[in-house]
Amino acid sequence: MRIGIAGCGLIGGSLALALRGAHEVHAYDPAGTGDIRAVGRLEDLLPADIVIVATPLARVVPTLAALADGSDGALLFDVGSLKRDVAAFAETAPKSTRIVGGHPMAGTTESGYGAARADLFRGRPFFIVPTARSDERSMAAAGDIARAAGAVPTVVSADEHDRIVATLSGLPLAVALAVAKTGAELSDFAGPGYKDATRLAATPPELAQALLKGNATEVKAALARFRDALDAVERGIG
Amino acid sequence: MRIGIAGCGLIGGSLALALRGAHEVHAYDPAGTGDIRAVGRLEDLLPADIVIVATPLARVVPTLAALADGSDGALLFDVGSLKRDVAAFAETAPKSTRIVGGHPMAGTTESGYGAARADLFRGRPFFIVPTARSDERSMAAAGDIARAAGAVPTVVSADEHDRIVATLSGLPLAVALAVAKTGAELSDFAGPGYKDATRLAATPPELAQALLKGNATEVKAALARFRDALDAVERGIG
Repeated sequence: MRIGIAGCGLIGGSLALALRGAHEVHAYDPAGTGDIRAVGRLEDLLPADIVIVATPLARVVPTLAALADGSDGALLFDVGSLKRDVAAFAETAPKSTRIVGGHPMAGTTESGYGAARADLFRGRPFFIVPTARSDERSMAAAGDIARAAGAVPTVVSADEHDRIVATLSGLPLAVALAVAKTGAELSDFAGPGYKDATRLAATPPELAQALLKGNATEVKAALARFRDALDAVERGIG
Repeated sequence: MRIGIAGCGLIGGSLALALRGAHEVHAYDPAGTGDIRAVGRLEDLLPADIVIVATPLARVVPTLAALADGSDGALLFDVGSLKRDVAAFAETAPKSTRIVGGHPMAGTTESGYGAARADLFRGRPFFIVPTARSDERSMAAAGDIARAAGAVPTVVSADEHDRIVATLSGLPLAVALAVAKTGAELSDFAGPGYKDATRLAATPPELAQALLKGNATEVKAALARFRDALDAVERGIG
């Protein structure tokens, strides 16, 4: 298949590396595409069988919008960390557009193509989220891409996805930021346990803000559940 | 020097492995001492230049008490995770006893001699805590042991030590337990960030309880500071 990658950072670059052995892969990224074959403009990723949208979160919907009109049957497969905005965009997209949401549960606090690796997704869960512009064939193609990257695809609704991500990504991020703030003056003495607990505090600020502010309602709900759990832990201390 | 190791688990075993090249090391542990030379009873570690007490936290003071009368000038050097109880015991110990507290800021969630490694302490901070039974010579000897194990010794009072440990160990432990409880039903989907954030939840329960209940006042104070920091993070979400 001919696969376009819009955004060739950690996630897009790793997908490109994982897929280029078996597919014809081109990438577009104004910041450079490493040793992935580049095209000069976003629209040059088309025609294609699939365009994977792996831009920073704030650019996902604008990129889908820029590609939709000329996509001519190409599956637009976004792999950002939140899904409600993608689902909402799909509702308004031209009827002929094919859009599926995806989210591989992999990553590091590093970013950019320099951190990309072909095996980043091996054995990792990969959420596949149907939209109003998904059909059976596009869902199957999205699942095949996830599997080809070594991941384990699992289907979930956009709402449920964003709830899950609030607990698995937003909550630990918010907590790590608060632990790091509490221990900032002592961090020279920190052992490996503290370093594990605060590693997410090094999340790039743009991504951190997108994960928290972009999913604020669900993150706040997760924080409320966390506070109850922490109260129970504290009561156990005596 | 002749060095005794009381408790040959992760910390005691790693110190034994780090020190036995340059010193005569014997260990006592009813659970076994791996390939460290064993003695049959705790008291058989004496006579010695130094006895390092690396038992589970709840056994530190009873072990110091069992060794104190026959120590005959040997430095008793405990390496447990909390220091106030050791300092309080030292106040009551025979005048001739020599006691220094220590705490290497290293470790893993694994435990036991099987996880011990000679390089566990390399480059790690190693708190050295004077007691009412410490003199210049015993403080110097404790610092030399820490350095010989590859660590970086730093002197701190027992009170300040336990405050620091509440923030660097107790707080992240309590928080990890609460995050793990909040996300328990979703953990199959967890990525590396969530796994880092919850790794301390796998701390052996006996050690977890000792770190939290044994330092309850300071841990609760750290939790109060953490809650303020988390409130600030949440306000930033909007």
